[in-house]
Amino acid sequence: MNPKRSPAARTPVRPTRSRPAVKAATRAALTPEVWIEAATDVLVVEGIDHVRVDVLARQLGVTRGSFYWHFRDREDLLRRVLLAWSTRATQALTKRLAEASKDPLERLRDMISLPHRGRAAVRAARIELAIRAWARRDDMARQALDAADASRLAYHEQAFRALGFEPAEARSRAFLTYACEIGESLLHHHGDDAQREHRKQRLGVLITTRKP
Amino acid sequence: MNPKRSPAARTPVRPTRSRPAVKAATRAALTPEVWIEAATDVLVVEGIDHVRVDVLARQLGVTRGSFYWHFRDREDLLRRVLLAWSTRATQALTKRLAEASKDPLERLRDMISLPHRGRAAVRAARIELAIRAWARRDDMARQALDAADASRLAYHEQAFRALGFEPAEARSRAFLTYACEIGESLLHHHGDDAQREHRKQRLGVLITTRKP
Repeated sequence: MNPKRSPAARTPVRPTRSRPAVKAATRAALTPEVWIEAATDVLVVEGIDHVRVDVLARQLGVTRGSFYWHFRDREDLLRRVLLAWSTRATQALTKRLAEASKDPLERLRDMISLPHRGRAAVRAARIELAIRAWARRDDMARQALDAADASRLAYHEQAFRALGFEPAEARSRAFLTYACEIGESLLHHHGDDAQREHRKQRLGVLITTRKP
Repeated sequence: MNPKRSPAARTPVRPTRSRPAVKAATRAALTPEVWIEAATDVLVVEGIDHVRVDVLARQLGVTRGSFYWHFRDREDLLRRVLLAWSTRATQALTKRLAEASKDPLERLRDMISLPHRGRAAVRAARIELAIRAWARRDDMARQALDAADASRLAYHEQAFRALGFEPAEARSRAFLTYACEIGESLLHHHGDDAQREHRKQRLGVLITTRKP
């Protein structure tokens, strides 16, 4: 479907024919973030192929032309969807958690509890799953995802190192903890609240056990 | 896009105008499994929206009409894609592993090693990720996925029970092990062979440790 998009779609289709006042209002109302948010929603609900400038413009009630105030083309929008996701999901998160506690055990428990944090966690999981599916067939998405995963793995590894585990052991435990968090975010609806609480607590204990 | 498919698409579009010999050959050559396999490939590479009868027919070099020898409509094909996946990925697997060993520890190690089994595992992971993404917006896919997850969770739980863990503990450990396997299948390309081997071995040990 979208391979059929012509090169003409890269330039404003309905340019500056509207009156200046209207144009200015539209420009003011729709920040790049609004487009990025709308594109993310479509990505999650309908998949990447449906993220198209004309669809978004119709949905936002503006002309396609206004899109080009903020973005060079569809590719540019997709790049910034990924950037917004990686900023929100990784950098900001890591920063917040690092500021929250200096205790590595506390930091790990914070990470482990992330998939359990209600509606925000469910939405984050939906976005991330959509990006994982997209990354299987798009290099730009793959790079953004790999970078995000690598930085989260490093964050976990740092915590296990701070707890005194040897490098190889810290790396493996970091990987397993993070793998479990991803699995939890995908399987979160299985079981009841007590079971969710129990497995969250058990993950924290098992993964930091000294002996085995 | 595909909501625009007309009801007419449910009946053969180019019916029996070809010569009987050709028709018979086409019918013989393309089993339902060939359609299901092709549909699964398109699902994985391009996403569910691209799984359309006309696209598959063109790809397989046959008329759309021949599709309707085996399937009622697109929905019927999708249903059987899910059925084929769940049979292959869950039932057959569970049966094979159950026959392989009566030792619950061996069974768990078998499950844990699944995401590490080369190209077949990579393909299985790709299919499953595509189905997880699809399940976020389709009830039929969601039901098939939930049933598959539930049956695998039960299989793990059974093994932990056989190892002597209390019910709640067995359930949590089963969940965490399976969550880790999903995470591994999604993050498998991170690290080198030695690291993959190490984390696989560590998962088996940590998840069955008695003390904590």
